[in-house]
Amino acid sequence: MNIATIFGIITGISILCAATYAATDSVGVFINLPGLAIVLGGTIAATFICYPLREVMRVFGLFMTAFTAEELPIGNYIKVLVAVSRDVAAHGEEHLERKLKSIDNEFLRDGLQMLVDGYSKKELEEILNNRIQQYHDQEINAAGIYRTMAGLSPAFGIIGTLIGLIAMMQAMGDDVARLGPAMATALTTTLYGALFANMFYTPIATKVERRVEERTILMCVIRDGILFIKDKTPAAIVTDKLKGYLPPRSWSSVPSK
Amino acid sequence: MNIATIFGIITGISILCAATYAATDSVGVFINLPGLAIVLGGTIAATFICYPLREVMRVFGLFMTAFTAEELPIGNYIKVLVAVSRDVAAHGEEHLERKLKSIDNEFLRDGLQMLVDGYSKKELEEILNNRIQQYHDQEINAAGIYRTMAGLSPAFGIIGTLIGLIAMMQAMGDDVARLGPAMATALTTTLYGALFANMFYTPIATKVERRVEERTILMCVIRDGILFIKDKTPAAIVTDKLKGYLPPRSWSSVPSK
Amino acid sequence: MNIATIFGIITGISILCAATYAATDSVGVFINLPGLAIVLGGTIAATFICYPLREVMRVFGLFMTAFTAEELPIGNYIKVLVAVSRDVAAHGEEHLERKLKSIDNEFLRDGLQMLVDGYSKKELEEILNNRIQQYHDQEINAAGIYRTMAGLSPAFGIIGTLIGLIAMMQAMGDDVARLGPAMATALTTTLYGALFANMFYTPIATKVERRVEERTILMCVIRDGILFIKDKTPAAIVTDKLKGYLPPRSWSSVPSK
Amino acid sequence: MNIATIFGIITGISILCAATYAATDSVGVFINLPGLAIVLGGTIAATFICYPLREVMRVFGLFMTAFTAEELPIGNYIKVLVAVSRDVAAHGEEHLERKLKSIDNEFLRDGLQMLVDGYSKKELEEILNNRIQQYHDQEINAAGIYRTMAGLSPAFGIIGTLIGLIAMMQAMGDDVARLGPAMATALTTTLYGALFANMFYTPIATKVERRVEERTILMCVIRDGILFIKDKTPAAIVTDKLKGYLPPRSWSSVPSK
Amino acid sequence: MNIATIFGIITGISILCAATYAATDSVGVFINLPGLAIVLGGTIAATFICYPLREVMRVFGLFMTAFTAEELPIGNYIKVLVAVSRDVAAHGEEHLERKLKSIDNEFLRDGLQMLVDGYSKKELEEILNNRIQQYHDQEINAAGIYRTMAGLSPAFGIIGTLIGLIAMMQAMGDDVARLGPAMATALTTTLYGALFANMFYTPIATKVERRVEERTILMCVIRDGILFIKDKTPAAIVTDKLKGYLPPRSWSSVPSK
Repeated sequence: MNIATIFGIITGISILCAATYAATDSVGVFINLPGLAIVLGGTIAATFICYPLREVMRVFGLFMTAFTAEELPIGNYIKVLVAVSRDVAAHGEEHLERKLKSIDNEFLRDGLQMLVDGYSKKELEEILNNRIQQYHDQEINAAGIYRTMAGLSPAFGIIGTLIGLIAMMQAMGDDVARLGPAMATALTTTLYGALFANMFYTPIATKVERRVEERTILMCVIRDGILFIKDKTPAAIVTDKLKGYLPPRSWSSVPSK
Repeated sequence: MNIATIFGIITGISILCAATYAATDSVGVFINLPGLAIVLGGTIAATFICYPLREVMRVFGLFMTAFTAEELPIGNYIKVLVAVSRDVAAHGEEHLERKLKSIDNEFLRDGLQMLVDGYSKKELEEILNNRIQQYHDQEINAAGIYRTMAGLSPAFGIIGTLIGLIAMMQAMGDDVARLGPAMATALTTTLYGALFANMFYTPIATKVERRVEERTILMCVIRDGILFIKDKTPAAIVTDKLKGYLPPRSWSSVPSK
Repeated sequence: MNIATIFGIITGISILCAATYAATDSVGVFINLPGLAIVLGGTIAATFICYPLREVMRVFGLFMTAFTAEELPIGNYIKVLVAVSRDVAAHGEEHLERKLKSIDNEFLRDGLQMLVDGYSKKELEEILNNRIQQYHDQEINAAGIYRTMAGLSPAFGIIGTLIGLIAMMQAMGDDVARLGPAMATALTTTLYGALFANMFYTPIATKVERRVEERTILMCVIRDGILFIKDKTPAAIVTDKLKGYLPPRSWSSVPSK
Repeated sequence: MNIATIFGIITGISILCAATYAATDSVGVFINLPGLAIVLGGTIAATFICYPLREVMRVFGLFMTAFTAEELPIGNYIKVLVAVSRDVAAHGEEHLERKLKSIDNEFLRDGLQMLVDGYSKKELEEILNNRIQQYHDQEINAAGIYRTMAGLSPAFGIIGTLIGLIAMMQAMGDDVARLGPAMATALTTTLYGALFANMFYTPIATKVERRVEERTILMCVIRDGILFIKDKTPAAIVTDKLKGYLPPRSWSSVPSK
Repeated sequence: MNIATIFGIITGISILCAATYAATDSVGVFINLPGLAIVLGGTIAATFICYPLREVMRVFGLFMTAFTAEELPIGNYIKVLVAVSRDVAAHGEEHLERKLKSIDNEFLRDGLQMLVDGYSKKELEEILNNRIQQYHDQEINAAGIYRTMAGLSPAFGIIGTLIGLIAMMQAMGDDVARLGPAMATALTTTLYGALFANMFYTPIATKVERRVEERTILMCVIRDGILFIKDKTPAAIVTDKLKGYLPPRSWSSVPSK
């Protein structure tokens, strides 16, 4: 589980609830169901116009990504690739075939399969690069749904407030005392819109985008590793090159030679 | 038909209407025809200054694109290209000529025709790349009309409100009670501007842009396929390369070998 | 003449005038000459600080560009280039020299002159590419003056309103009735700023930028055509390549072979 | 001296002063020294946190750049380079050495010195390109200080207004008449922030950036000229290539052959 | 210590405190602990949702970077690299090995180690480029946390004000006198949000980003130096090339030959 995300959501909600309780006696005014319908419903409806059904549905899957454990084990993959590189240098590419089925990562397995099938280096490079590029573009696009929602949410918050204000002003007479509660209700939708955008949509979009970037780096490590194996590059050079993908403070986790 | 778009528009309008009915007894205040004229008319007038007549007219065509069925059958095109590739390997390029007329997709037919005409690989690549590039740039530009309208719409909403406010304040005397309904009317144009931008222009611009991107990917698949056929690449490699354009979860729809 | 631009400006002004007349009895409040001086004068003064004198002066020339007839005859230029290509194939490059003086387009004439002068393909490509690049960058920069003005105009609108509000509040006493007209006058500058930005500066910037893009595409067509002539490429391939610069629906206007 | 910049600043200040005098009897309300301290002091303090001391100090130098005469004599440099090119073709590179000391432009002198020293074309190109790139990046970065200040200035204007409003509301009783002057004072800081950003920081940032771009183009002209001299390219081709860096309307100032 | 940063923070806080004391008698109204909790707590909570725990923790380290002494000694590194280059030219690469341990900079030591180990120029270039690229991308990403906080802070300021306003309006009766202090308290959170964003988050993000850029330039200098040593380029050319990375006014600090 991803502790930071859960900690962030719980802390954020707690602080806002506490501050709200401290500010007013009648917390009920903050609950405005028609306003919530405008903000949430409007945002989701506009998102459905923006994106194909199939992709909006995947959004829930992406949402869960934000809660899963972080930090991909790139260091481990480097070790595996160096080991495979030594193995191939010693026993030849055919030796690999038996081990393929035990590899979980689909991208690595497919790449090694193509290596065993005897694809040329140029073919391997083109196929792997194309897959990385397409994976990256399509996933970033999908994360864009949250960015779109983060932009729509405050807009529908303001739309809700405008509807409330117009209704209030229309009915407004001399009685200024009646103005307050009506305006309070109208403003709750602006609050909802700002809250959803800044507590949910924007942070989740940021987190999902970073996950995609991390996985793309992992795919680049695997691509470079497979191409080094094809080239029969010495294991020491493979290690030195692949280590560059890790932040310097993690280099000690990969034995240099 | 595109279910998501229609569902989105109907849901969005329903939610906003319901919320408006819940908020006020006199729904009539939300109907402000001069205000509507300022927002819609101003947006369209400014758009006519921005873009040539011919392109603004195409906007309605683009509008319909947002309602047509989604998901281009890229998988099918890959199968067709692999089949053509096997065919050419077996019977030569001349064999293709008879089949050309039965191909619907203009870009594919033109490309195969050039293949039959014996264009060199470099010429083929340059011609196809240039067409993809120009198609992409010109269509994205056309979708930009909606982006421009999405930017102008709230601006004219605020212009309408300013006109209403200035007129109201000019006539304002001591009678604060008269202030409310006039301000309500003035605010409706801001509401119109925000609604049109967030329920129509922005979502449609997003959808049209995504369609263009999808079609560009399809054109890249076709270009790569034609170049592979020119190169007489084995069908297995063609499949592996073209599959990369699909999202991984759709790979099983294309038989690997 | 460019019908869309003129239609847009006349329609836009008419709609706004009609809506203003409908909204108020005293149209005079919308005319605020000191406010107009702040918005127009401030915008122009700041633009003079931003850009050299010579370029601000060219702005009027660019302004007229927005009113001239649209759609460059790229199709015609393709036909001319194909004809020249056939001519050179038949009679040699020297034959071209006599015809050069009858060519209006300076870029095409200069390019063909260099062809006749026997420049190598690499030299031709470098010189033409450099000219296209510099033309594009300098003209887009010039169009940027309008973008700058579109950004400054609402800012000076708000500055004018702030000056009006401060003066009004300073003099404000218990008499709320006097507040209205003063505030109405103060708000007119915000209206002016928003109107100029959205009805003039932004649309004209968009139109001028598109013109520059269109002319750049025409220059690319001419460059490719000249290089094809240098290469003695067959006319059919020249046509197929250059057609790619046109939108697909205009392809039928260029005879294929 | 740069007439446009000075004309812009004087005109802008005059218009705003005149409009202010026209709007109010008590001009004193527009002078708010604590507010000025918040806006100017806050902007400068935040800029000192953003940038190293040494670069903030250079800002005054950049400020003067905006007032110096415009339009670099690129045409003259082209003539000089063509003359040097003819000279070297006639008398050899050694002949250059004597003339080097009379060249003012450091970039040109250094480049010709390297030419005389017998650096290879590839070395020359790498060294000159690297210097152009670094010059451009570092100067654009320095101009970025003004962009940063243009962004901070309105923010500190609003911060000042908020401080004023909070103090005013805290002390507010039933006496609405006292409200006006206090609010007027609070709003002056927003006015200051908007004015400084739109009359000084943004225009100067734009002008400095354009100067850097112009000088970069001049450096590209010199680089191309030196490489042509190294290549012993005929003077006619040198002229045709370098002319491309000028706007077409200035071409007649450079004799073609 | 970095004087500019500390001077900026102290000056900024002093000016704002002085202006606040000048504006009001009751400074207490500016202290609103629940509001501070909303702004700081909300920003930090949303940041925890955006970024993995490990990276948020590093933020404090980055914060200190903004206070350390500025200006990396690129000139010294150039002198060291030129000296090493002369050394290798005289005594061979093996001679280097003994000196490696005395080099502090990890990137330089690793690069020279690879040189001694006999890596080819292409391998060296790929490994060093990859490390520079990854270092740059990951550190800029980390600095992005401050950018994210700078965006969230004003949003939570407004959220806090909305909560305060809604509570106030709900309880509002005829007593306008009670309105002032409640509104003052509500507005403090907007002030907090704007202050934190413009005095802390944005300036620190800018400074950290510039540090990363400076270190990337230093890494490029080291990479170029190592590749020149591998190539056995004469020391004069090494100096001329590497000097390009310094601003021209610092060139005199590096002896030319």
